[in-house]
Amino acid sequence: MEFRVFHRSGECRARVGEIKTAHGDFETPVFMPVGTQGSVKAVSPDDLKHAGVEIILANTYHLYLRPGHKVIERLGGLHGFMNWSGPILTDSGGFQVYSLSRLRDISEAGVTFQSHIDGSRHFIGPEESIEFQKALGADIIMAFDECAPYPSDYEYVLNSVKLTSTWARRCLEQKDNQGQALFGVVQGGMYSDLREMSARELVDMGFDGYALGGLSVGEDAKTRLRVITDTIDLLPDDKPVYVMGVGAPEDLVECVMLGVDMFDCVMPTRNARNGTLFTRKGRMTIKNARYSEDKRPIDENCGCYTCSRFSRAYLRHLFMAKEILAYRLNTIHNLYYYMHLMAEMRQAIKEDRFAGYRYNFYELQGKEVVV
Amino acid sequence: MEFRVFHRSGECRARVGEIKTAHGDFETPVFMPVGTQGSVKAVSPDDLKHAGVEIILANTYHLYLRPGHKVIERLGGLHGFMNWSGPILTDSGGFQVYSLSRLRDISEAGVTFQSHIDGSRHFIGPEESIEFQKALGADIIMAFDECAPYPSDYEYVLNSVKLTSTWARRCLEQKDNQGQALFGVVQGGMYSDLREMSARELVDMGFDGYALGGLSVGEDAKTRLRVITDTIDLLPDDKPVYVMGVGAPEDLVECVMLGVDMFDCVMPTRNARNGTLFTRKGRMTIKNARYSEDKRPIDENCGCYTCSRFSRAYLRHLFMAKEILAYRLNTIHNLYYYMHLMAEMRQAIKEDRFAGYRYNFYELQGKEVVV
Repeated sequence: MEFRVFHRSGECRARVGEIKTAHGDFETPVFMPVGTQGSVKAVSPDDLKHAGVEIILANTYHLYLRPGHKVIERLGGLHGFMNWSGPILTDSGGFQVYSLSRLRDISEAGVTFQSHIDGSRHFIGPEESIEFQKALGADIIMAFDECAPYPSDYEYVLNSVKLTSTWARRCLEQKDNQGQALFGVVQGGMYSDLREMSARELVDMGFDGYALGGLSVGEDAKTRLRVITDTIDLLPDDKPVYVMGVGAPEDLVECVMLGVDMFDCVMPTRNARNGTLFTRKGRMTIKNARYSEDKRPIDENCGCYTCSRFSRAYLRHLFMAKEILAYRLNTIHNLYYYMHLMAEMRQAIKEDRFAGYRYNFYELQGKEVVV
Repeated sequence: MEFRVFHRSGECRARVGEIKTAHGDFETPVFMPVGTQGSVKAVSPDDLKHAGVEIILANTYHLYLRPGHKVIERLGGLHGFMNWSGPILTDSGGFQVYSLSRLRDISEAGVTFQSHIDGSRHFIGPEESIEFQKALGADIIMAFDECAPYPSDYEYVLNSVKLTSTWARRCLEQKDNQGQALFGVVQGGMYSDLREMSARELVDMGFDGYALGGLSVGEDAKTRLRVITDTIDLLPDDKPVYVMGVGAPEDLVECVMLGVDMFDCVMPTRNARNGTLFTRKGRMTIKNARYSEDKRPIDENCGCYTCSRFSRAYLRHLFMAKEILAYRLNTIHNLYYYMHLMAEMRQAIKEDRFAGYRYNFYELQGKEVVV
């Protein structure tokens, strides 16, 4: 993987870069839709391409449990298995072990847990996580970390940061440099000094990129932005910065302003399946009765497949009738919205008008801009 | 609507014809996928076109209840509402009133029933059915009939046939000849003389086509084929014959041999969602563990979107993981299989080799051919 920054905003920390991988190149800041189980829910790889998606994320925890990383390896890795030819990033499995599985037992070796599917017992440590991610064959893989619950006391988070550093070192040792980039994950909860400790330790080890984990776990937006701002200052300027699990469109705009390069979140896809659609003017709840005879597309300025073919009235009907097509059409729109938002931000940064873009972004939604 | 037969098999009653409508022309024998609620479940209009679908069926009962025929009329009729530019046939609503709704009360005026969605009370008679179907704007509409339960005693079916004829006449009077073709529906259960009575009465009235209703309701295949054979002889040779609710691939082959021109059935779409896929060699249950590492497509000779991109192993994984994409990819394959089967049969008829085609159809599945 190669990363280079080719434009820096004259107004803020925002920057435009390019990441080159064996499966294609893309510009940053970039948003990665989540393909939890080897499928971005409700859409096909072609739908993703048409919506402008350039890189997707897949969850190691889910794929390890079903169908199994070895099965996927024998079927040509994730790229071959799901017929997605573009770049892929896999997470380490850690986050889902903590959030989904039962009876977790964390030790220095790793985590013993029970599958959320059938209760079977499993173990993942840093070595296993890297082994699984090698088998899956993503272009970018993540170090195995401990994501402390929020809120957690200082002592707990301190130990969590130490464990994360130990594991990060073992992940680096396990990596074999065959075309997979490895990112370290900065932890430290909302404690500035622990974030700093985590960042410094990881930077000393030298990763291909740095992620901020343990965010969007219940903290308020102000705290989140403070942690991001403080941490980015400690990371090398020539490596991509990835904020995991973020976020809403407003979060993306704020984080891009702070210099974040990569994002992932289930929000565009999950909201689509719940009938919440994103537009320039804000969120739309498609089941609202006011749309029952509305011939207009979701967003009259949107160029997505859904908006170019179907009315709000039809989409409302599909959603009310629980038709499967509703989930696909809504997902295509929300993904397009996210991809378009990222492209607009990159363009605004290149043209040194990001502050104006951000102002308009909020104004269109009738919101106050926090300067 | 225009219908002309342009090739008759030299071997059997099978024939190839063409139906011209305001929304496009198609050859018969034709299979119509079912778009119950204004969507062929799990696929888009583009998916239908790519699978070779030329005409779809929509259910008046469902669309009357939700979102309402008047709403659809204001939104440009079914064609505009669901963005399907090809021909559409709507049923009369009768079948679902009998099979889905509660507290039915049938009189000469029509049927009072309770919605299966919210229990609200409604009335449909022949006049209402035609009014609803005019609003929906399909190219081919169906007369409102009574579909007797199976089995029913002779007296019940006799009265049902008389009521169906009375209603058929009222449907003809209600029709306004603005480009919508109206088909009569022959009833009569499994009683040959009642089928004959129904057919003669409807033919005397003069419809644009004739459907055989009250089949695939639990009778055995032999009885069904006997009823179809006997009834087709009584219908005018220059009008299309449509067997409603049929059927499995074998049913289509047998009925085409008997001279049937049109079919509809939920089988390809419903089976797809249940993980049953059609291939030349028979049915495949995709969740079977034997497919867990099978890199081959569903059917190596299939040209569908799904088979050209995805392995059995991936489709099995999607199905086991309940991923929404599974339902779409399976549905695309099954629809393509059905469309391809119909196209192959039309070609075989044109080339006077239908008997041989039928023989091969069964042989590939390892089945005995009943001559």
